[in-house]
Amino acid sequence: MDTSSLRELLEDVKNGRIVPEAAAEKIKRLTFHDLGFAKVDIHRSLRQGFPEVIYCAGKTTEQVVSIISVLAGNHKNILATRANRSIFESVRTVLPMAYFHEIPGLISIQTEKPEPVGSILIVCAGTSDLPVAEEAAVTAEIMGNRVERLYDAGVAGIHRLLLNEDKLNSARVIIVVAGMEGALASVVGGLVDKPVIAVPTSVGYGASFHGLAALLSMLNSCANGVTVVNIDNGFGAGYAASLINKINETA
Amino acid sequence: MDTSSLRELLEDVKNGRIVPEAAAEKIKRLTFHDLGFAKVDIHRSLRQGFPEVIYCAGKTTEQVVSIISVLAGNHKNILATRANRSIFESVRTVLPMAYFHEIPGLISIQTEKPEPVGSILIVCAGTSDLPVAEEAAVTAEIMGNRVERLYDAGVAGIHRLLLNEDKLNSARVIIVVAGMEGALASVVGGLVDKPVIAVPTSVGYGASFHGLAALLSMLNSCANGVTVVNIDNGFGAGYAASLINKINETA
Amino acid sequence: MDTSSLRELLEDVKNGRIVPEAAAEKIKRLTFHDLGFAKVDIHRSLRQGFPEVIYCAGKTTEQVVSIISVLAGNHKNILATRANRSIFESVRTVLPMAYFHEIPGLISIQTEKPEPVGSILIVCAGTSDLPVAEEAAVTAEIMGNRVERLYDAGVAGIHRLLLNEDKLNSARVIIVVAGMEGALASVVGGLVDKPVIAVPTSVGYGASFHGLAALLSMLNSCANGVTVVNIDNGFGAGYAASLINKINETA
Amino acid sequence: MDTSSLRELLEDVKNGRIVPEAAAEKIKRLTFHDLGFAKVDIHRSLRQGFPEVIYCAGKTTEQVVSIISVLAGNHKNILATRANRSIFESVRTVLPMAYFHEIPGLISIQTEKPEPVGSILIVCAGTSDLPVAEEAAVTAEIMGNRVERLYDAGVAGIHRLLLNEDKLNSARVIIVVAGMEGALASVVGGLVDKPVIAVPTSVGYGASFHGLAALLSMLNSCANGVTVVNIDNGFGAGYAASLINKINETA
Amino acid sequence: MDTSSLRELLEDVKNGRIVPEAAAEKIKRLTFHDLGFAKVDIHRSLRQGFPEVIYCAGKTTEQVVSIISVLAGNHKNILATRANRSIFESVRTVLPMAYFHEIPGLISIQTEKPEPVGSILIVCAGTSDLPVAEEAAVTAEIMGNRVERLYDAGVAGIHRLLLNEDKLNSARVIIVVAGMEGALASVVGGLVDKPVIAVPTSVGYGASFHGLAALLSMLNSCANGVTVVNIDNGFGAGYAASLINKINETA
Amino acid sequence: MDTSSLRELLEDVKNGRIVPEAAAEKIKRLTFHDLGFAKVDIHRSLRQGFPEVIYCAGKTTEQVVSIISVLAGNHKNILATRANRSIFESVRTVLPMAYFHEIPGLISIQTEKPEPVGSILIVCAGTSDLPVAEEAAVTAEIMGNRVERLYDAGVAGIHRLLLNEDKLNSARVIIVVAGMEGALASVVGGLVDKPVIAVPTSVGYGASFHGLAALLSMLNSCANGVTVVNIDNGFGAGYAASLINKINETA
Amino acid sequence: MDTSSLRELLEDVKNGRIVPEAAAEKIKRLTFHDLGFAKVDIHRSLRQGFPEVIYCAGKTTEQVVSIISVLAGNHKNILATRANRSIFESVRTVLPMAYFHEIPGLISIQTEKPEPVGSILIVCAGTSDLPVAEEAAVTAEIMGNRVERLYDAGVAGIHRLLLNEDKLNSARVIIVVAGMEGALASVVGGLVDKPVIAVPTSVGYGASFHGLAALLSMLNSCANGVTVVNIDNGFGAGYAASLINKINETA
Amino acid sequence: MDTSSLRELLEDVKNGRIVPEAAAEKIKRLTFHDLGFAKVDIHRSLRQGFPEVIYCAGKTTEQVVSIISVLAGNHKNILATRANRSIFESVRTVLPMAYFHEIPGLISIQTEKPEPVGSILIVCAGTSDLPVAEEAAVTAEIMGNRVERLYDAGVAGIHRLLLNEDKLNSARVIIVVAGMEGALASVVGGLVDKPVIAVPTSVGYGASFHGLAALLSMLNSCANGVTVVNIDNGFGAGYAASLINKINETA
Repeated sequence: MDTSSLRELLEDVKNGRIVPEAAAEKIKRLTFHDLGFAKVDIHRSLRQGFPEVIYCAGKTTEQVVSIISVLAGNHKNILATRANRSIFESVRTVLPMAYFHEIPGLISIQTEKPEPVGSILIVCAGTSDLPVAEEAAVTAEIMGNRVERLYDAGVAGIHRLLLNEDKLNSARVIIVVAGMEGALASVVGGLVDKPVIAVPTSVGYGASFHGLAALLSMLNSCANGVTVVNIDNGFGAGYAASLINKINETA
Repeated sequence: MDTSSLRELLEDVKNGRIVPEAAAEKIKRLTFHDLGFAKVDIHRSLRQGFPEVIYCAGKTTEQVVSIISVLAGNHKNILATRANRSIFESVRTVLPMAYFHEIPGLISIQTEKPEPVGSILIVCAGTSDLPVAEEAAVTAEIMGNRVERLYDAGVAGIHRLLLNEDKLNSARVIIVVAGMEGALASVVGGLVDKPVIAVPTSVGYGASFHGLAALLSMLNSCANGVTVVNIDNGFGAGYAASLINKINETA
Repeated sequence: MDTSSLRELLEDVKNGRIVPEAAAEKIKRLTFHDLGFAKVDIHRSLRQGFPEVIYCAGKTTEQVVSIISVLAGNHKNILATRANRSIFESVRTVLPMAYFHEIPGLISIQTEKPEPVGSILIVCAGTSDLPVAEEAAVTAEIMGNRVERLYDAGVAGIHRLLLNEDKLNSARVIIVVAGMEGALASVVGGLVDKPVIAVPTSVGYGASFHGLAALLSMLNSCANGVTVVNIDNGFGAGYAASLINKINETA
Repeated sequence: MDTSSLRELLEDVKNGRIVPEAAAEKIKRLTFHDLGFAKVDIHRSLRQGFPEVIYCAGKTTEQVVSIISVLAGNHKNILATRANRSIFESVRTVLPMAYFHEIPGLISIQTEKPEPVGSILIVCAGTSDLPVAEEAAVTAEIMGNRVERLYDAGVAGIHRLLLNEDKLNSARVIIVVAGMEGALASVVGGLVDKPVIAVPTSVGYGASFHGLAALLSMLNSCANGVTVVNIDNGFGAGYAASLINKINETA
Repeated sequence: MDTSSLRELLEDVKNGRIVPEAAAEKIKRLTFHDLGFAKVDIHRSLRQGFPEVIYCAGKTTEQVVSIISVLAGNHKNILATRANRSIFESVRTVLPMAYFHEIPGLISIQTEKPEPVGSILIVCAGTSDLPVAEEAAVTAEIMGNRVERLYDAGVAGIHRLLLNEDKLNSARVIIVVAGMEGALASVVGGLVDKPVIAVPTSVGYGASFHGLAALLSMLNSCANGVTVVNIDNGFGAGYAASLINKINETA
Repeated sequence: MDTSSLRELLEDVKNGRIVPEAAAEKIKRLTFHDLGFAKVDIHRSLRQGFPEVIYCAGKTTEQVVSIISVLAGNHKNILATRANRSIFESVRTVLPMAYFHEIPGLISIQTEKPEPVGSILIVCAGTSDLPVAEEAAVTAEIMGNRVERLYDAGVAGIHRLLLNEDKLNSARVIIVVAGMEGALASVVGGLVDKPVIAVPTSVGYGASFHGLAALLSMLNSCANGVTVVNIDNGFGAGYAASLINKINETA
Repeated sequence: MDTSSLRELLEDVKNGRIVPEAAAEKIKRLTFHDLGFAKVDIHRSLRQGFPEVIYCAGKTTEQVVSIISVLAGNHKNILATRANRSIFESVRTVLPMAYFHEIPGLISIQTEKPEPVGSILIVCAGTSDLPVAEEAAVTAEIMGNRVERLYDAGVAGIHRLLLNEDKLNSARVIIVVAGMEGALASVVGGLVDKPVIAVPTSVGYGASFHGLAALLSMLNSCANGVTVVNIDNGFGAGYAASLINKINETA
Repeated sequence: MDTSSLRELLEDVKNGRIVPEAAAEKIKRLTFHDLGFAKVDIHRSLRQGFPEVIYCAGKTTEQVVSIISVLAGNHKNILATRANRSIFESVRTVLPMAYFHEIPGLISIQTEKPEPVGSILIVCAGTSDLPVAEEAAVTAEIMGNRVERLYDAGVAGIHRLLLNEDKLNSARVIIVVAGMEGALASVVGGLVDKPVIAVPTSVGYGASFHGLAALLSMLNSCANGVTVVNIDNGFGAGYAASLINKINETA
């Protein structure tokens, strides 16, 4: 939203040609920073409650640094996914407060840390699912949620899950991360009366077809209340869980 | 849970061998009514907040009637999905208060109607998606949620959606139902800061592959906060939306 | 094996040109009844412990009747799968002792009923899986096995399974029949130390892709000891379970 | 077309055995340069308006250099796709006027630059789609079209697109490049009354299945006027857009 | 667009608060007729050059009649696809000028027939592809284009195509309709210098997988200038061809 | 080929402008009978050794009758595939010498029956594969080949095949027809030193995916000399086998 | 199972509040060692007859070493799959008795070697299948089974198999390992009257789709008694075969 | 076939217990050289006309050298596919007469070169298809066939094919090698009256799905007489073509 448009809009407000609510709605919707190769969505935090998150895959390091710099000038908390240490090193030279989460490959900047609210439980089936589970966990944490972890609780040894029912019961939303056959989502879904977000992972081989087996399994869950995100999309699960966890929070 | 087990359990409580909370937990988990061909999960409403829902496909009419009768003896509100008028007629002979929802093929019994809470908005892309959208809507309604409908708002005429942003903004959870390319889920997801549950439908032909195109599209949504259920699974979306809509409701 | 070949072979035995064991091996392998459109494998029961089973799909009623008649002239117990009542009526006109199993669509003739041995447990996830579960059960029964049933024990209400662990523990082999996401196979597989044969069913819709979801789920089971048969192949599971159940039986 | 055939043909023309138009048609069709491993289609520019374009993938550098040399001897403007810097360096040693477009991996030789005509707009959803978008843009430019770019305008922040409707309206043909769920094609298609060529990209992960999700999404677009090319086929889109953009141009 | 909004808008124009162009743009975008189950896009013809086309599949006859009636009150030419004679009979009772095209299953109302412009050639591979080819042809005709047909010209007898090169050369846009292996699109694409829209059909069996083989074939065409629409989507091809055919038409 | 073109061509021959061989080549290539909806390829028998074969699926009965009538006026032997008795009855009213092969659904007219040559062996795995096997057999017979049949020789009872090795050895070409897992093709291929054409059938269920399993199996055959045709394409196998069987036949 | 719980449980036993059998059942089910990133299932050997097996793929070397150390403190025989020499070297530094099986990539520790029982035969189709075959063989050996090997016996040279029928006959369970078309499973299954576990391998190229062809082939086996495990899952086959081989062993 | 068995067999012949023909048949079938990891099929050349061909992929260099050495001791001409230069170097140290074909990755030993017979034409669509085309060509040459090549004759410039019809007409068998959409097979198949073996290649990208598009295209060819082999299986095509080319050769 360039300056002149903004000025005109505000004059419209002043002259009563537009009511303040409508003007706010317009501003909320219309602003981005145009870098040519990218239109950084500055006002997404207004519209969606969190700034645009940078998906690093397929971008050059220079593009990532440039986008993250624009965002850092406008927001307090920032997240970049599918990053690696090399990208991080470049980011750090311009944004020294950036932090790298090695396991999930996330870069975060968090200059404001409000008290976390509610509770999101991340359950994962096996140790190999950790990178995805941590992507969900860190995403939810940086968005201001309280996060619990229950890792390596796959159905091959179901007592590991059943012995932790208190954790299941005390969460407001549950994220289930599992590869191979992804059965854990249905089992958890059958035990609780809260929303379950299932994240299939690409852990497995052969007929797992890079996570397809777990994905289909979760989509066909016989348990109610289970919704699904893309394979290995820990970020998406953490984001959706945050939106859910905060419903009615301020009411 | 047969009577003797229950008696033993209660004696344990009385004798202090088990604390009441633990006993409740056990009861919540252990009870079902065994019909031989079915183990009707009587206590699911305790565990999950709503009784077992009957999936009619693949069951004989006799089996459906038998299961629904057992449930009706134990619960106030009942739902059966993927039914048809013929099944309904048989059900009605034994349960005259049953109601048939023609478009989504649902049978419901609702002897208790509390004031609906919150707000779930159902958006659908085209008129052909109505059966699935209505399955979601009726499910959510019978579970005690306030439901709004915004139908035939597909992206080919995006102004139909943009002109209804107030509806988008006033909902707590949004269900987006779309076939063909399913683009509507991403567009809605990009406009709001609340959870969006996307339901791909089998509307389409050729390379829609019976809903696969919409399913993949929704799973790969570039908008945040979108989770997905199975193709044509309006029921699942309505159920999950209900769980989300009620978070913190009683707090 | 036509008569002249047999006579020659036996003369070879008599003259010492071939030892009896080798001759038996040859006979075991070489005999069938040629109907032109079918070579009925008369000696399969010698080679495999049970006569050729007739797969009715894609055969005319006349072909089925003709093949079953040849088999009935040579064997005591006979099984035909994927039949329907109309085929059965034709069979019954020539073989009045034939019996029709309505739910699984099987025709059986059982003129010899030895005491059943061991124990095969059939667990199924939902009532809609019954036709497949019964195909497995009846197959195993007619092959002389003791069969237990544990139906409608899906993971959405896992206590229905956990409360029946004694049944799981007292079986020698377990067949798990499940559609949708097929999670039941992994859960059962994780609880026991015996072979589990998983049968995915085509129960479900949308992204179940006619049983593919359950099939992939079961093939990727994180539990050990689980092997898988084709979608809806209750017969194959029953047959394999019978072979396993009888290992060392006579020793 | 070897010399003798050509001579004969021309004699036929001279003798009136064939009218000039028919002879031109024949020549247009018949000529290529045979390198043994390749039959360079010299006269494609007559038949199709642009010389044969070299697809470098799967060819040795020597083969590319050899083919491009033959073409350069016959044509003013040349294009090679799916090249890399190493191939380019070899090409440059023999054709110093060659130019390398780093992002889309194109080699071009352009010794004739007519005034560009019409207007092709390239819209892309995200920064990661740039290589494909640029392949389309450079292809269209070298074929003599005026090209506009509107990058990073994905539907997650749809105002970035809506604020640029003037660009959409002033184009004659629009190319939409998008990965993940590819929803942008339908949104653009619904806003305009001109041909839209959709290019799915392999940007994404998991259930994007290397661009399949975007491809199916675009093929099922509910918006009219959308046609689709292969995944990542920016070249094909640029080529087709050029043919469309030039319709009636000289009329 | 309800009346009051329109009045307000016009007052804004009158008072100079909005310039006429902007108001027109707004009107163009905002108007639809809300039937509850459908939001009929009245102004699509302004935005896209042709009214909303009704896709009959998955709609009840009543819904189709209702939508088509609204459209008929606002437009001169109307098209409904995937209809059948039964739907048509109902439509005819309220709109007697409706016409049914039996082979492609189209209903059309054409109260205005301008002189057709340009030339679109429809080539199809075999007689079994006729329904799809006719869907494209009738769509293009009703949209005001001159249409030529070249049917049953598949590559198994390629001389049938080569002998008709004059037809190929005199068209402005070519639609190629083919099932089975869909090779015709590439062959035509290699012969001409104009846009080719390829329509895969579901004609075939076995590994044609209901048109998938032809679809993939066409997407991978080695000929330039070929774009593709969904399987059996003759309408979409006719629509896109019309947009292309009319480029620069009025200039 | 219209008369005037033919006349011109012949004058060219007479005047020595074209040598007779070349003219013959041209005639061979250029002639068809145009019915509007079909271009009947009259001279295919010159070019390919057998007249155009009519694929009835997707054609109206009227179209089939019309095409077959044109062919019957030009050829002695005619074949139509994927027909049914109803089509046949219509054909017979105009062509009383037509014959209907019930099992494979073929219509044939054979007014010339030369002595069959060579030997093609058709092996099929099970009785359910008969329709496809017979389609191959009848096709080969009508094309003038000697045909042997070896039916129901699947690998589950491999002795039925091994006992018929003389049949395998005396054939010049072998067609193997099998559904389910299609293993028979590899077993036969490993036993012989002659070309094997494998025909996967759609016999099976579940993970046979309508013949996909057999198709993939045959394409991956570890035996040498095996080539494959489409699922259920008995006609294609019979045709190719005929071409192979006749190689060097007249030499 | 932490100490206090165990103490309480044992006091319950002492006080007669729980019978010893029930307590054993509880202990069997409830114990694991929590490492945070992993819950090592210490008591799986009680429940399943063999300790938890470590799947190394997707785990860091540190995680593998840590898990294997915990297991080694509780069990005599240990197995880790999908390992490589580098992981092994790290394991050996803390567990010097560890052994590396190069071909199948297994790490084993075997401090107790009971006399092997029964007989499991591993048949593989080609030399390229060896890694998977050896994974099955070593798994079965370490679990205490007698193992026979019959390698490179594919159906392209079926005499290699037929000449070894004595081996087939003397086994109690047979594992068939094959890639490409996987026909070997059906051939073996048709020859014997014992359970056959089929292991598809990813050996092959093109339309083998990384083992899919062999997998589908085996799932559709026309031979009875064949069950299937995941592609390349030699471990799973060896494990299941061991369970089967030991049935009735101690009776 | 070990020596004693052979001696016994021969004594049977001498004593008239078996006729010479039957003995020959037995020998032909029964002999292989057992290396433990491989059963080298020494007598395949008797059974199939050419020795076992070594598929190098998935074998260690040592295994290849060992197998090729055994074969070289028994045969004059040897072929190994999917080799690379490194394997070749190892082979050459023990078999100095080995030759490496760089483009198709073949190792051959040819100590006997009879006059080639008949004629096999290899047509390929583009230069990128050369490795597969050459695999077919070299295979056919080493098996004693006369081979012609027609490369880079794809349908995008169909005159390159049409101008070479004499080559098509003078061949006895034609192999068509093509990637992308594979249309060339149908075009060639429609022009000739001889067997066409189609080889899809993995040349392409995106929706070619590594050759799947070409494979499906070729399987659905509307031209008669076309059979198909696996993706990139030049060897298989060359082998089958050789069998076909030699039919009736010696007669």
